[in-house]
Amino acid sequence: MSGPRYTKLVQSLPASVPFVAPEQQERKQGYAFAARLGANEGLFGASPKAIKAMQEQAGQQWKYGDPISHDLRAALADHHGIEAKNIVVGEGIDGLLGYLVRLLIEPGDAVVTSDGAYPTFNYHVAGFGGVLHKVAYNQDHEDPSALFDKARETNAKLIYLANPDNPMGTWHEGTVIETVLDTLPPGCLLVLDEAYIDFAPLHTSPVTDIEDPRIIRMRTFSKAYGLAGARVGYAMGAAELIKNFDKIRNHFGMNRAAQHGALAALQDQAWLARTCEAVSRARDRIAQIAAQNGLSSLPSAANFVAIDCGKDGAYASEVMTALTAEGIFVRKPIIAPQDRCIRVTCGPEQDMDLFEAAFARALMKSSKNFQ
Amino acid sequence: MSGPRYTKLVQSLPASVPFVAPEQQERKQGYAFAARLGANEGLFGASPKAIKAMQEQAGQQWKYGDPISHDLRAALADHHGIEAKNIVVGEGIDGLLGYLVRLLIEPGDAVVTSDGAYPTFNYHVAGFGGVLHKVAYNQDHEDPSALFDKARETNAKLIYLANPDNPMGTWHEGTVIETVLDTLPPGCLLVLDEAYIDFAPLHTSPVTDIEDPRIIRMRTFSKAYGLAGARVGYAMGAAELIKNFDKIRNHFGMNRAAQHGALAALQDQAWLARTCEAVSRARDRIAQIAAQNGLSSLPSAANFVAIDCGKDGAYASEVMTALTAEGIFVRKPIIAPQDRCIRVTCGPEQDMDLFEAAFARALMKSSKNFQ
Repeated sequence: MSGPRYTKLVQSLPASVPFVAPEQQERKQGYAFAARLGANEGLFGASPKAIKAMQEQAGQQWKYGDPISHDLRAALADHHGIEAKNIVVGEGIDGLLGYLVRLLIEPGDAVVTSDGAYPTFNYHVAGFGGVLHKVAYNQDHEDPSALFDKARETNAKLIYLANPDNPMGTWHEGTVIETVLDTLPPGCLLVLDEAYIDFAPLHTSPVTDIEDPRIIRMRTFSKAYGLAGARVGYAMGAAELIKNFDKIRNHFGMNRAAQHGALAALQDQAWLARTCEAVSRARDRIAQIAAQNGLSSLPSAANFVAIDCGKDGAYASEVMTALTAEGIFVRKPIIAPQDRCIRVTCGPEQDMDLFEAAFARALMKSSKNFQ
Repeated sequence: MSGPRYTKLVQSLPASVPFVAPEQQERKQGYAFAARLGANEGLFGASPKAIKAMQEQAGQQWKYGDPISHDLRAALADHHGIEAKNIVVGEGIDGLLGYLVRLLIEPGDAVVTSDGAYPTFNYHVAGFGGVLHKVAYNQDHEDPSALFDKARETNAKLIYLANPDNPMGTWHEGTVIETVLDTLPPGCLLVLDEAYIDFAPLHTSPVTDIEDPRIIRMRTFSKAYGLAGARVGYAMGAAELIKNFDKIRNHFGMNRAAQHGALAALQDQAWLARTCEAVSRARDRIAQIAAQNGLSSLPSAANFVAIDCGKDGAYASEVMTALTAEGIFVRKPIIAPQDRCIRVTCGPEQDMDLFEAAFARALMKSSKNFQ
């Protein structure tokens, strides 16, 4: 009996997974993490109103969700001062990045990103046969000019830029992006991943015309709104571009309770503001914990802080492993020299206390092992 | 400013939507449906244990779901007497069909389905550039032999067959599929959509080896388990085929509460049995309502019944429109001669009462309009 005939592209792909989940680590190691500080989740939780909305909808899950997420898109349009036709809601930014890559990228097409930036974007590009061109970070910042230069050089159809950046937490003022946008090569699209924008200082998001065909922005309810498990993201852009998602997206792919939860979360901006204040305090706390241990950390505009462990990537990996043994889940950048850091998600005092205690021990252990 | 450069395939695609949702109809018509009998949802609702599990998880939605759906897959493996490596969980059968088509179909590849079968499958095939070859129903049944003949004739990589069928509700005994499977052309895969299998008589599902590389089965929590809004489906097949989904799927695409809800639903087989009994009674009731109005209906192994309105497709459309005006949401087949029918989802007594009253009036109105 012969098996299925896969596409040439699929035959060439590895069965790669962008991230190993903490649950998988827990099953492997045989104990649960005491603090979950590795996935930049919203540890301060979702608005109680969002939780209530999802609970109320649990009994209504026998119904399919609204395939056009009408109410949520209307509220988002109102929130951003744009029209619903400029918004597509999808299964998290991950899902939307997959759709976007599929809209633009055929085998051989060039795509530009930063070396060490979001692996899931790279996964989608590879999955549609795109050719990734990577640009180095510049002093732990993504480098917009270098990205745009590389796009021109490679005739790229798509550039990925996260602002604030993940995994470093660094950011550019919106005007930097506004300026560089005017140098975008014709026929190239900038996908601006603003997953962490809610935590950033004012003016971090560039001011552009929503009908500008050169840029699409991605936003999410997974971070500041504390709804990572709900899987609700959205993209904002020119109506013509947004309409194209309807050609390929999984129209009935949205969880119904999640649509209601996201709407309620959006309507509780007071909760969002309190969350962002709490994240800001936790960033200071993480920086302070680093300093207590004689280490520096990077200023961050996101809900995590990159701590410079002071040596190379191998040492930072030791520290991460030691933290895992202490029951603390963190992740780290994978490309030098950013890989000298570990990345710690902001959380409530209790989690920060656990991290503080574990970090000192992990550093002691790592120093001993790392001669 | 120039816009993005779409792929040739995307440029050729219409912005088609497989289905218009009842919510969209409601917004257009300005009133809510009194009975939602058009999308074959599980009107008897999910197990209270599933609802409770989703409510309990609402406050945990700040965490991403487990990307490998470990616990759910383990329970499904146990339930089916197979291994977890033979199961992939995805965002409903719709999502999984999209992944499957992407694994196999490049522009120009042949795919076979029945004319009038599941539009969302066709949407995915078109979305990856596949060429659909359609085979007629045979006496309101999908025709396995004709499908397989057409696959041989066109060198198809994929055949779609739903058993029980949607939209007609008809079915084949499992042995029919077992027998025809031995005539599958080499290099062709049968995707057997068993979304409605829980409602079907014993022996409707074919008995095959899980490692048989010629067949993949799709199952869902959307129908008998009453969790359409949760978006949880799964595919069962040879480990090698299942592993390939990991090359392209949205690993973090599953809603966390939905994973827990599906697990709890699976563990409440008593609720499932009661639901299927209630559906069976409702099928009889719908047949009886048809008979009261001098109409016949098709025997059904699903949670809906196709009522033969006794004239052509235009007349059945009139009846559907008249039902809509009465506040009853139903859908209908679109291809002749199946389009002579309307398709009515099974529901609790109250919904069936509403349908009974509205149907008599709708028929009267349609007869008058349709001279």
